[in-house]
Amino acid sequence: MSGELVELAKRRGFFFQSSEAYGGVAGFYTYGPQGATLKQKIEDRWRERFSTKEGHTEISAPTVMPEPVFEASGHLEGFSDMLVECPECGESHRADHLIEDNTGIEEAEGLPIPEVEMLVEEHDLRCPSCDAALAGEEVEDFNLMFETSIGPGSGQPGYLRPETAQGIFVEFPRLKEYAREQLPFGVTQIGPAYRNEISPRHALLRTREFTQAELELFVDPETDEPDVSKVADVELTLYPADEQGEHDDPEEGYVRTTAGEAAGDLVESWVCYHLGLAKQWFERVGFDMERFRFRQHQAGERAHYAEDCWDAEAEVDGDWIEIAGFAYRGDYDLSKHGEHSEENFTVFKQYDEPKRVERATVDPDMSYLGPEFGGQAQEVADALERLAERDRSAFEGEEVTVSVDTDEGTSSSPQSSTEDGEGYTIPVEKTGFRVEEVTESGTHITPHVIEPSFGVDRVVYTVLAHAYDTDEVGGEERSVLRLDPEVAPTFVGVFPLMDKDGLGERARELTEELRETGFEVAYDDSGNIGRRYRRQDEVGTPFCVTVDYESLEEDPETVTLRERDSTDQVRVPTDELADTLAALRAGETDFDDL
Amino acid sequence: MSGELVELAKRRGFFFQSSEAYGGVAGFYTYGPQGATLKQKIEDRWRERFSTKEGHTEISAPTVMPEPVFEASGHLEGFSDMLVECPECGESHRADHLIEDNTGIEEAEGLPIPEVEMLVEEHDLRCPSCDAALAGEEVEDFNLMFETSIGPGSGQPGYLRPETAQGIFVEFPRLKEYAREQLPFGVTQIGPAYRNEISPRHALLRTREFTQAELELFVDPETDEPDVSKVADVELTLYPADEQGEHDDPEEGYVRTTAGEAAGDLVESWVCYHLGLAKQWFERVGFDMERFRFRQHQAGERAHYAEDCWDAEAEVDGDWIEIAGFAYRGDYDLSKHGEHSEENFTVFKQYDEPKRVERATVDPDMSYLGPEFGGQAQEVADALERLAERDRSAFEGEEVTVSVDTDEGTSSSPQSSTEDGEGYTIPVEKTGFRVEEVTESGTHITPHVIEPSFGVDRVVYTVLAHAYDTDEVGGEERSVLRLDPEVAPTFVGVFPLMDKDGLGERARELTEELRETGFEVAYDDSGNIGRRYRRQDEVGTPFCVTVDYESLEEDPETVTLRERDSTDQVRVPTDELADTLAALRAGETDFDDL
Repeated sequence: MSGELVELAKRRGFFFQSSEAYGGVAGFYTYGPQGATLKQKIEDRWRERFSTKEGHTEISAPTVMPEPVFEASGHLEGFSDMLVECPECGESHRADHLIEDNTGIEEAEGLPIPEVEMLVEEHDLRCPSCDAALAGEEVEDFNLMFETSIGPGSGQPGYLRPETAQGIFVEFPRLKEYAREQLPFGVTQIGPAYRNEISPRHALLRTREFTQAELELFVDPETDEPDVSKVADVELTLYPADEQGEHDDPEEGYVRTTAGEAAGDLVESWVCYHLGLAKQWFERVGFDMERFRFRQHQAGERAHYAEDCWDAEAEVDGDWIEIAGFAYRGDYDLSKHGEHSEENFTVFKQYDEPKRVERATVDPDMSYLGPEFGGQAQEVADALERLAERDRSAFEGEEVTVSVDTDEGTSSSPQSSTEDGEGYTIPVEKTGFRVEEVTESGTHITPHVIEPSFGVDRVVYTVLAHAYDTDEVGGEERSVLRLDPEVAPTFVGVFPLMDKDGLGERARELTEELRETGFEVAYDDSGNIGRRYRRQDEVGTPFCVTVDYESLEEDPETVTLRERDSTDQVRVPTDELADTLAALRAGETDFDDL
Repeated sequence: MSGELVELAKRRGFFFQSSEAYGGVAGFYTYGPQGATLKQKIEDRWRERFSTKEGHTEISAPTVMPEPVFEASGHLEGFSDMLVECPECGESHRADHLIEDNTGIEEAEGLPIPEVEMLVEEHDLRCPSCDAALAGEEVEDFNLMFETSIGPGSGQPGYLRPETAQGIFVEFPRLKEYAREQLPFGVTQIGPAYRNEISPRHALLRTREFTQAELELFVDPETDEPDVSKVADVELTLYPADEQGEHDDPEEGYVRTTAGEAAGDLVESWVCYHLGLAKQWFERVGFDMERFRFRQHQAGERAHYAEDCWDAEAEVDGDWIEIAGFAYRGDYDLSKHGEHSEENFTVFKQYDEPKRVERATVDPDMSYLGPEFGGQAQEVADALERLAERDRSAFEGEEVTVSVDTDEGTSSSPQSSTEDGEGYTIPVEKTGFRVEEVTESGTHITPHVIEPSFGVDRVVYTVLAHAYDTDEVGGEERSVLRLDPEVAPTFVGVFPLMDKDGLGERARELTEELRETGFEVAYDDSGNIGRRYRRQDEVGTPFCVTVDYESLEEDPETVTLRERDSTDQVRVPTDELADTLAALRAGETDFDDL
């Protein structure tokens, strides 16, 4: 089916490889006239559901971002795939994919490089292009970010963002102001993201430039709870981590339940709330719910900071494809940016009543620290202050030891105080340590993040794959895209029976009128009428209107209105046509009732 | 005003410099919650007007494109600015801007580099940052495309597209198929484009990443004509090239006319048709038509292939800013790609009746050419064929000379046959030259292109600048954005008078209900009600709804509806609220009639 769909996509203007006039470049696709509109409508539906109706706000950040952002996010260090180059033909391959394709190992992405090199050798893996042996070849980490240079001269390094999320996280200090520091609040973004894939494949499913639609929802982990009642009855097909790999038929491991039942039990509540919303949304844009499930990430698959993570998966061509991810990311992202930048990535949470709290403080004797530690004295004092906040028991003995990181100033994290830093020991009496009672009106907290992240191109591809059908009409096979009228790129085709005797003119007038009303209209007068219906069926146009000789004779004038799926036809007065079509689009009228 | 607007934009979430937590990078802006929605709505209005209603189709191409595209388009060679680097502080500057700012010269961009270097020396131009002398410093061409590398290893050079247009031109061979080679047809695209500006400035007006909305309209130059009657009565303020620089007050050079009058006379007809559409569109999204004009490019400003070009300009802070360009580009773009690629960038134009035409052909005597020209024989034969097509008079003498380009194969363009190629002389009798009569059903033509190209960020900036106003309400100055309800990012604010006695609950319910209807709703319960109105006034929210004690007492329940511009208030029954708001948004109801 995949081949047929890709061929139809190219022939009918849904999508095709870009720049083919110059040989093309793998992993870059252009959406043609039908595809761009389909994609646009899917984005609009996403915006309506996950932003407007939820009361979240949308932002739009640049696709090029400076290096420090990705130092903080970890992409500079860790956003890479394992690359092995063929010594014969020079082709590059993903070493983990070669292992997965040729050994029994299912998840090779997380393996350390030496082990991967060993596996390549052990299994005598060969170049898929020229069959040369790859044993002994070096396996390297290849960073998947596209790099560029900003500004003249040697410039400043910049990267095409690998995910839209960072454009939201990095602006949190400003976004929290717009939300007046009131949690929970959500920020969405729809836009391009980039991965310099080693081997792009499967048309829209693994490209180097793609579109993401992401929501970053910031919550107070202690007090905020989702209103699960809004989705309580939504039925979910869940494939929990501990059922995976346990059954010959995965379906035996599925748990069929409702969002209301699963929330807080099988699935973290915030994540579950979004699974409920997403299930309804996928159904609405046209996914076949018989080929849809939510699969939980297994422990090894999940980022270490993610408390829970589920993927929306759709079956296409017999494979289960990840369409969207729903992760509970904790405070990971905001903490990282808080550490790397000078800005404040927390929100101030006011207590209901001011609180009297004990606070441990220090007031180090600098006349002792100065001579003792020289240039490090201030850093030692800072380290003492942080230690007092963190662990007042450290001051219970006669001496206290703090560590000062000689490279990057003092460090307050427990790991580095024992591992990297240089230790300094100070008598407690010189630290001015004391515990006092103060009044606090609130406290600074780092919000937790729930991230529903959608791959828009994969949604588009699945919508097409699930809408694609063949049947028989008038004894001939036809291919038809059964797209929902809300997302179909062309809403109505308008044809004159023939382009003569004024029929063509009238049909062109009607076309103009319907376009003015805001419908996407395709006018077509070439070939016989059956062929024109087939053309519209193949791009998923839900309705076609034909102006025939009867039209010109009748008073009031009527035209033929034909439905794509049933191929049924009715006559409709022209002056009611726009209203009828609007009612059909909105689902207020059923074609059978006309 | 500019400073105030930029400050308001930042404070209220319209736009701000990106990644400021890491010091920011010049020329990159993020649209915040208000700005992203405003921009989105402007793009939607553009799509509706210039794509859907015109019956054109939209595509979406990648932002990263391979090098050969820009070899063909000329960007690799010619898309550059003149750079001069300060020898003291190392700052880079645009040499042409320094000249324009410090001498009487108005257009320095087109000057040759040696002349620019001379002018820098003559006028003793200095570094604007540190005042060091720039005389004697080298002026260089700096290419403005962001470069990156596609794929692993040394990769393949790729560039961030400097305009969305190339994503359309390069796919013309496929796009013409979708249009079944029927001219005219138009293809639109809205998306990011990039210029690695030497000195970005003026907030959204000169950024390194920006959004374009472009239409490429392909027409048959011989037979296609626009339907100017659709815009005949649209009033245009035109500033023709030959009036520019002729008046102390530019307004004296303005021609105030209609699109119907100007078409084919003052302005090329296709261009004029689009000026008419654009004028109406700019007015609809909220431009002040007192600060708007169309300025014709002067001969020196215009690309050599452009037959006519007009800019839509808006006055902001006393400066006239280019917002959109409307160019008649002839066959330049398609011809270039036709020459550089192997694909066919023409359309086949069927004659009404098949024609008998004379055709000159050759049938060279290879038994002569072979021994005579060796390895070049076939290329000489090809060159003879092309020469016969182009200029049959060349075969009138006894001998004919063709040129074969030794680098890139034979060349058929007249320039290179005399300049670069190697000449070969052949007796006419050995060429098999003859003129025969054949029947042709049509001919291949290269369509001409009309390109309306909009800078979306500049539209957004001008909409804000023209909507910004201050007045006095209740004795206090207020700032207000008088945005059109169709583009205002927040459509309605909902407030409880106070968040107690059930008012807050009821207001939150109403908020949910209005969001479900698809309105963008801001809920606000913090601070006094006057302050909340001011907040919404400042982001341009056209209407606010307040739930007060009367609301809970009355049956049926009513709420206060307040209009932004007049600050007038009326009471509206809650169960009519959504319909009333919808009618106000659509312009079907006037607030005064409530």
